[in-house]
Amino acid sequence: MKLLITSNSFGSADPGVFEELEEAGFEIQRNPYGRIMNEDELMELLSDKDAVILGTENLTDRVIDACKKLKVVSRYGVGCDHVDIESLKRHGIALEIARNANSEAVADHAVAMMLSLAHNLPAADADFRRGVWKKRKGVDLFHSKVGIIGLGAIGRGVARRVSGFQCEIYAFDQYYDENFMEEFHVRKADIPSILQSCDFISLHLPAVEAFRGLIGRETLGMMKDTAILVNTARAELVDKEAVLEALKEHRLGGYGADVFWDEPSTDAELSECENTVLTPHMAAVTDGAVREMSRISAENVLKHFR
Amino acid sequence: MKLLITSNSFGSADPGVFEELEEAGFEIQRNPYGRIMNEDELMELLSDKDAVILGTENLTDRVIDACKKLKVVSRYGVGCDHVDIESLKRHGIALEIARNANSEAVADHAVAMMLSLAHNLPAADADFRRGVWKKRKGVDLFHSKVGIIGLGAIGRGVARRVSGFQCEIYAFDQYYDENFMEEFHVRKADIPSILQSCDFISLHLPAVEAFRGLIGRETLGMMKDTAILVNTARAELVDKEAVLEALKEHRLGGYGADVFWDEPSTDAELSECENTVLTPHMAAVTDGAVREMSRISAENVLKHFR
Repeated sequence: MKLLITSNSFGSADPGVFEELEEAGFEIQRNPYGRIMNEDELMELLSDKDAVILGTENLTDRVIDACKKLKVVSRYGVGCDHVDIESLKRHGIALEIARNANSEAVADHAVAMMLSLAHNLPAADADFRRGVWKKRKGVDLFHSKVGIIGLGAIGRGVARRVSGFQCEIYAFDQYYDENFMEEFHVRKADIPSILQSCDFISLHLPAVEAFRGLIGRETLGMMKDTAILVNTARAELVDKEAVLEALKEHRLGGYGADVFWDEPSTDAELSECENTVLTPHMAAVTDGAVREMSRISAENVLKHFR
Repeated sequence: MKLLITSNSFGSADPGVFEELEEAGFEIQRNPYGRIMNEDELMELLSDKDAVILGTENLTDRVIDACKKLKVVSRYGVGCDHVDIESLKRHGIALEIARNANSEAVADHAVAMMLSLAHNLPAADADFRRGVWKKRKGVDLFHSKVGIIGLGAIGRGVARRVSGFQCEIYAFDQYYDENFMEEFHVRKADIPSILQSCDFISLHLPAVEAFRGLIGRETLGMMKDTAILVNTARAELVDKEAVLEALKEHRLGGYGADVFWDEPSTDAELSECENTVLTPHMAAVTDGAVREMSRISAENVLKHFR
């Protein structure tokens, strides 16, 4: 069987995954361009393949139609907006995604941001490097009230982590895993009551219509002036002007963000606010997440040929 | 009864502690200078007092001898190098310390530093504020091996926290709380094996002779090149030249420090290293720690007069 791997980071943390595929009988071709391939390049390399581990290339109906042997598309990631899903269905080609591969990395990052803001690490570290010895009073994550909005794999990861800080944990979702709730002492709560009562609030929702602008003037007004808000999900959940206003007027204790409204551009206005910690959409970029994403996307190919 | 409180931060997070003392019958006098008092100032204010909640003033034999009513010295903190303990004993005056009041704050800070370094927050945040969008690959605290050297109240706090990240936890101490070890799945280990095997190493030892320079050329050489070392304990546990060398030669993944060799001076050489996070001995400066320190030091007075 022939396999094309278009993602350049696939296997970069653990080359053993290539061996595993070869031992299972796959002849592997890798993306020779070191960049995202265009439609023609992809079509040429994919036309004689049985399977593909796909990065972010556009998989159009034209490409799919030219691939007579293709049985499985295994996304190296979760997003599929660049894949013609209808065409795959018509052609009877399976589509797999690397679900939850980077959940633990993102959950680590969210807690890293909570603690950084709580203990003023970015500001104190910047002072220190300028030669300024200035203590800043922090707040404890320990024994605080943490609100998790969206209790999917990442939200559950955050809950598991903050349980070690003996926090009171409140979570909102449309579906709850009762065993999980009991094991980690997580309490069900609606969004307004989380906003009103929690010291730390972490967003883990998709940016679907119902949740766009969820954090805006009104909802920020419900929050404690000292609350720390962390967004490792989607920028669109937060109204930018409202959060800037709240930060400048000290009606919000801190904002940690890994996601922005105009990526890949940095944000000058947020950068001017001291009570922020800002990273360029890299929460999921860890050795562990790359390894897990490689493992899952390879497994998603293998299971179709066993 | 008359009580002198010399620390200006006492009660700053929760004034209720003053009321509690007054309700118990204490007439409170506070430090009127807004700074550390000298020997004569302290002697004058303390001479007619029954108790003192003491900041970092020097409590000399001369002062103690002049305080004919003094029954209790309650340290607002734990260090007593500025107190003439022998003189207190001779005069039959009790000495109390606010033991473990800030353990949770320091444990939070240690984990904040681990996560910040693991996810490159200081460097990525600094880039972002300069307008540079540059992803950096991090490492996961999740599922990693964490070594805790010194398993007192702070070390146990760190263990409890990282258990939420599903880490393999190894700890060294001279005494182990077996129930704790079992509950949080902490394994006993000697220092060399911790250094050799762990991804994250956190120091929680006193700077007694046996441990000074514990982390030096030889011990750094035993560690993984990617290991992240965090020191919220005492600078003297680490050999400065050796850690600088290891950081520059990329034989150490990162160094997080809240304690320095020449406090209160910042450290220009460490500041030049990118894979560091540096804070000015402020791990224990949180609302929660101030509240707890106030509560404990007040309680340490009250229990002598019940």
